[in-house]
Amino acid sequence: MNFADLLIQKIEERNNPSVVGLDPRIENIPSSIREEKANKYGDTAQAVAAAFLEFNRGIIDAVHDIVPAVKPQMAFYEQYGPYGVEAFIETVKYAKSKGLVVIEDAKRNDIGSTAVAYANGHLGEVATCKGNKIAIYGVDAITVNAYLGTDGIKPFVDNIKEHGRGCFILVKTSNKSSGELQDLKLQDGNTVYEKMAQLVNQWGEGTEGTLGYSSVGAVVGATYPQEAKRLREIMPKAIFLVPGYGAQGGGADDVLPCFNPDKRGAIVNSSRGIIFAYQRREGFTEEQYKEAARAAAEDMRDDLRRALNL
Amino acid sequence: MNFADLLIQKIEERNNPSVVGLDPRIENIPSSIREEKANKYGDTAQAVAAAFLEFNRGIIDAVHDIVPAVKPQMAFYEQYGPYGVEAFIETVKYAKSKGLVVIEDAKRNDIGSTAVAYANGHLGEVATCKGNKIAIYGVDAITVNAYLGTDGIKPFVDNIKEHGRGCFILVKTSNKSSGELQDLKLQDGNTVYEKMAQLVNQWGEGTEGTLGYSSVGAVVGATYPQEAKRLREIMPKAIFLVPGYGAQGGGADDVLPCFNPDKRGAIVNSSRGIIFAYQRREGFTEEQYKEAARAAAEDMRDDLRRALNL
Repeated sequence: MNFADLLIQKIEERNNPSVVGLDPRIENIPSSIREEKANKYGDTAQAVAAAFLEFNRGIIDAVHDIVPAVKPQMAFYEQYGPYGVEAFIETVKYAKSKGLVVIEDAKRNDIGSTAVAYANGHLGEVATCKGNKIAIYGVDAITVNAYLGTDGIKPFVDNIKEHGRGCFILVKTSNKSSGELQDLKLQDGNTVYEKMAQLVNQWGEGTEGTLGYSSVGAVVGATYPQEAKRLREIMPKAIFLVPGYGAQGGGADDVLPCFNPDKRGAIVNSSRGIIFAYQRREGFTEEQYKEAARAAAEDMRDDLRRALNL
Repeated sequence: MNFADLLIQKIEERNNPSVVGLDPRIENIPSSIREEKANKYGDTAQAVAAAFLEFNRGIIDAVHDIVPAVKPQMAFYEQYGPYGVEAFIETVKYAKSKGLVVIEDAKRNDIGSTAVAYANGHLGEVATCKGNKIAIYGVDAITVNAYLGTDGIKPFVDNIKEHGRGCFILVKTSNKSSGELQDLKLQDGNTVYEKMAQLVNQWGEGTEGTLGYSSVGAVVGATYPQEAKRLREIMPKAIFLVPGYGAQGGGADDVLPCFNPDKRGAIVNSSRGIIFAYQRREGFTEEQYKEAARAAAEDMRDDLRRALNL
C-alpha cells in the first residue's frame, strides 16, 4: 500500500493527526522497571535496552487505539549499541502488531552509493552472504537530511516506490538554531528552507497515493508557524511531520498552518509530553505511567480536534 | 589527548595523510569468507556481520603500519541491525588495538537534546539503569551534518572537549548533486557551504591542540578542488577529511588545495580503491585481498607523498 494513503487512512480512523514520539531516556523510566532489569542483566547496556522495550510496550498498549502512529527516535536506542538497536527493532515489531504506523526518526543522509545501504536497511531489504534479500528494520517511513542533494535522496525514493514506504525530509526544524542555515536568504529571494521545500516537491513526484498526497513528506517545526504557512504553499502535496508541540513550546494553534484546507497533510508529534506524562501531570504515580500517557495522548488529540474543528 | 594533535601525530609517524574507508559490501567480500560464515550462521544478518568483521580485521592487519587512520562507514554495518552494529564496534576495537585512529562516518544530526544521545553514545559515555556511565562506541571522531545549526553541534563539541574526541562537519561533499543546496548563492555573496565553513570555524574555537589545529574538522570532497581552495582560506585551523579520491574520481593533485602550506590540515580517504583492490588491480586472487589492499594503500601513500613533496 502507498505510504501516504496508509498514514492518512490511519489518521482518519482515529480522527487524530498526532504521533507519539518513543524517545526513552533511562533516567525518566519508572524505577521499578530500571531496578528489575539491572537485577536481571547487571548494570549494563543490555539492561537499559530491556527497560526501554518494556516501557515502550507499555506506552504502545496505552495509546495504540488513540493515535495512528509512533515515532521512535533512533538516537536514544543506538547510543546503547547492539542491544539498543535490538530494542528499537522489537519496538517497531510490537507497534506494527498493534496496527500502528511506524515513523523512524533517524535523519540519515549520505552520498548515493552509501545512502543505498541506509535506505535498503531501514525501508527495504539487504543482501545476505548467498545473495538473498532480508528485511531488517521494517519501518514504514524514516526522516532524512538532504544537505547532500538529490543523489542521497534517490535511494530512499526507490525504496518508497518499491516497498510502499515513506520519508520525511528536514525542511524547517523545530530547534532554536534552525535558522542559522535554514533561514539564510538566497540571491533569488528564497530562503534555504524554501529551496529545500521546492526540492521535496520534486522528489515526491511519482510517490503520490490515491488521496493525492506524496510519500515524500517534510519535517516542519510547530515552533515556526509563519514559516509553515509559506511551506504549505510550496509543498501542497507533502505530509508535514510536525515536531515541537508540547515540551518544545508549540500549541495546537501553532500547528494549524501545517494543515491543508481539507484538514489533511500534517501529523503532529509529541514525545516527552506523552511518554513521561507521569512526571509532568498531577495525580499519577510512576506505576501509572501508562495511564498518564493515555490521558496525555487523549488531551493532545482533543486539543488538535478542537483547533482543527475535526 | 587532544584529537587534532593525536591525528596529526599519527599522520606524521606514517608520513602519510591518508585514511582507509572500511565500507564492507557483502557482494565484494571474498567468497571463501562469505561461504564459511553462511555455513556457520545460516544465510543471516549474523553471517554477514561475521564476514564483515573477519574481512575488516584482515584489512586492518594489512594496512595498520602504513596508514594513520581508518574510517568505518556506519551505514554498511547498521543496515544489518544489531549484528551489524556489533561488527562495527568490534572493528573499532580491533583498529584501536592496532594503534589506528578511528573516524566513524555516520553523518549524525538532530536537535540539541537528541544530539546529546548521539554524541554521548558515539564519542562519550551513556547512563545505565543505576546512573553509572559506560562507553559504547569509543570512536575517536565522528562525521556530523550541521543543517540544524549550533544547538545540534554543541553536544558533540562538549564531548570533544571532555573526552579528547573530534568531529568532521559536512561542508562541501564529494557527490555530484552536492551543489543543489551547498552551492546556492546567498544575498551576502557567500555560498551555503562558505557559510557552513564560517560556522565550523566558530564551533572549533577552544578545541585546538598544541599544533594549532582544531578538533572540529570539515568534510570537503576531493572532487571540488576550487571550492577546497576557498574553504582552506575560511577555515585555516580545521582538519579537512577529504573523500572522493580514487573510485569517485579525485586524484592526488586535486586534494592539494585541502592542505595548508605547512603540509598539514587534511587527511584523504579512499574506501573501495583500497579494501576491494583485489577486484580492481591485476595479479591478485580473492584470497590475496590483504596483499592487494596493502599494495593499494602504499600506492596511495606514495601518490600523496609525491604530490605534497613529503
